[in-house]
Amino acid sequence: MGEFELIRNYFAAAPCAQGGEGIALGIGDDCALLALPAGEQLAVSTDTLVAGVHFANPCDPFLLGQRSLAVAVSDLAAMGASPLAFTLALTTPTVDADWLQRYAQGLNAMAQRCDVRLVGGDTTRGPLSLTLTVFGRVPAGQALTRSGAQPGDLLCVGGELGNAAGALPLVLGQRTADATIAEPLLAHYWSPQPQLALGVALRGKATSAMDISDGLLADCGHIARASAVSLLIEQEALPLSAALLAFVGDDEARVAALSGGDDYVLAFTLPEAALAPLLAGGWPVHVIGRAATGQGVTLQDANGRDVTPRVRGYQHFHETP
Amino acid sequence: MGEFELIRNYFAAAPCAQGGEGIALGIGDDCALLALPAGEQLAVSTDTLVAGVHFANPCDPFLLGQRSLAVAVSDLAAMGASPLAFTLALTTPTVDADWLQRYAQGLNAMAQRCDVRLVGGDTTRGPLSLTLTVFGRVPAGQALTRSGAQPGDLLCVGGELGNAAGALPLVLGQRTADATIAEPLLAHYWSPQPQLALGVALRGKATSAMDISDGLLADCGHIARASAVSLLIEQEALPLSAALLAFVGDDEARVAALSGGDDYVLAFTLPEAALAPLLAGGWPVHVIGRAATGQGVTLQDANGRDVTPRVRGYQHFHETP
Repeated sequence: MGEFELIRNYFAAAPCAQGGEGIALGIGDDCALLALPAGEQLAVSTDTLVAGVHFANPCDPFLLGQRSLAVAVSDLAAMGASPLAFTLALTTPTVDADWLQRYAQGLNAMAQRCDVRLVGGDTTRGPLSLTLTVFGRVPAGQALTRSGAQPGDLLCVGGELGNAAGALPLVLGQRTADATIAEPLLAHYWSPQPQLALGVALRGKATSAMDISDGLLADCGHIARASAVSLLIEQEALPLSAALLAFVGDDEARVAALSGGDDYVLAFTLPEAALAPLLAGGWPVHVIGRAATGQGVTLQDANGRDVTPRVRGYQHFHETP
Repeated sequence: MGEFELIRNYFAAAPCAQGGEGIALGIGDDCALLALPAGEQLAVSTDTLVAGVHFANPCDPFLLGQRSLAVAVSDLAAMGASPLAFTLALTTPTVDADWLQRYAQGLNAMAQRCDVRLVGGDTTRGPLSLTLTVFGRVPAGQALTRSGAQPGDLLCVGGELGNAAGALPLVLGQRTADATIAEPLLAHYWSPQPQLALGVALRGKATSAMDISDGLLADCGHIARASAVSLLIEQEALPLSAALLAFVGDDEARVAALSGGDDYVLAFTLPEAALAPLLAGGWPVHVIGRAATGQGVTLQDANGRDVTPRVRGYQHFHETP
């Protein structure tokens, strides 16, 4: 048995690979088999993380395990889907048992938190990279897409923005900060919490949704294009954390929130009437603007002035860290 | 719009990304949505190909496009599943429009042949590699697994063995050959034909199945282990092509067939009574041995002698080309 087959067996023995509801056949055959209840559809998304591009290398493999699954599962949250399973394609230059064990532990921790099972994958030799494909269940016709926003809808986000981007100087070791500041920011970067429950709560209420991975402005641009509406964002309404404000100040915090990326917080639109029930239900919904006729995304300051930055966030390909 | 988003749009416009039955939502949102008829399960498999490890670099991107999809879809054939959709995670160091166009053309050609649709993926910068995740449909309970072989079953393969391994010196430019020899061998390497129809025909007949990617001996070892049987292979029964025999001679052809890998031909077991109907139906079924009680894989020559090689084929990780 080759060393890469040993890795496969290792992952197959991981707690998150032990099957569950909806998984008719797990790791170990040519394919896994997923079973869906009648009336449900399968949501599918694939994400690749490349060492030195999407994450610093070396880095803590436990944290990487958590983060690699979280960013993939976040796409399920954005569709209002309930996590079912995932596959892991791991490419690694060397077989380092300690690294693999800690990576698998991080993966397991996030898999348990998201209630999702490892059902297959591939392990190959090459420059370090990870491709995760995630599967979720959603009742037919109830998935949240990017294309249904209507003029007049409220534009909302599911939590504070900019924390992960603000954490980058800490991740890269370029700056330090007190634990009260560093810990919440680093936690957001390394262990983002896919807003799965919020996504499910938004079924039948939100007219469009996505998760913020490339920065608020860039991702709102995707909704605006797909829905053929314009989106107006009120700068003063951006939810910013105390830790971020203390670490980088107001101006930089705003830039991180608008263009930083890696938030994995949901952005969505909904009719005004849908807001009160969600707030009453205790859901984290922050109204930051509104949809209108037209196209594009506009940022407005407290005086109603257009302060839209010319560069709309990161390119879809993250150069750093 | 960044260059990697442009690549995404480029693939989204490809013919094989234009939706189809069972695809409720294709490329362009946070997730694709797949719909399954009641009573069917979804077969899922992931394969990674790394440049310089699983394929020579540079190579013809059209041929790589064909091959990358074929080897992934072959896992659906091995389960008796009908292809539905796939995702492509492409990591590339540079954006080369000509390379991408030719790769997409090869991918399209194989997608059309296999009747499978591109529904999503990711495009990132990094060392060249491809991860394809394929999805197929199979009636619940009818998937072919590796674990059902019974003592007394016939061991069969779906076609000639060793052609792809025999083609390697041609692929790597180490040898040349007349077109009558080179063309069929290279075609087998670059454009393997997933045995999808055979897989479907074997539903309810084969007791176990897999596709031969690591070499007959190694892959029969997987069936033997999963089914808790032994498998006896008759060396003289191995189906070898005229081109392979002419190119490398009897002995090397046999080694290629037993240990070469990359055949993507089905290996399967079935009760003796199931053989005649399959042969009468014109299916390419070659009986090469038999399952028995015990464990492991044994190779036997025409005189009944045990001639099992000590090294059972490639490691699961292919060092070349």
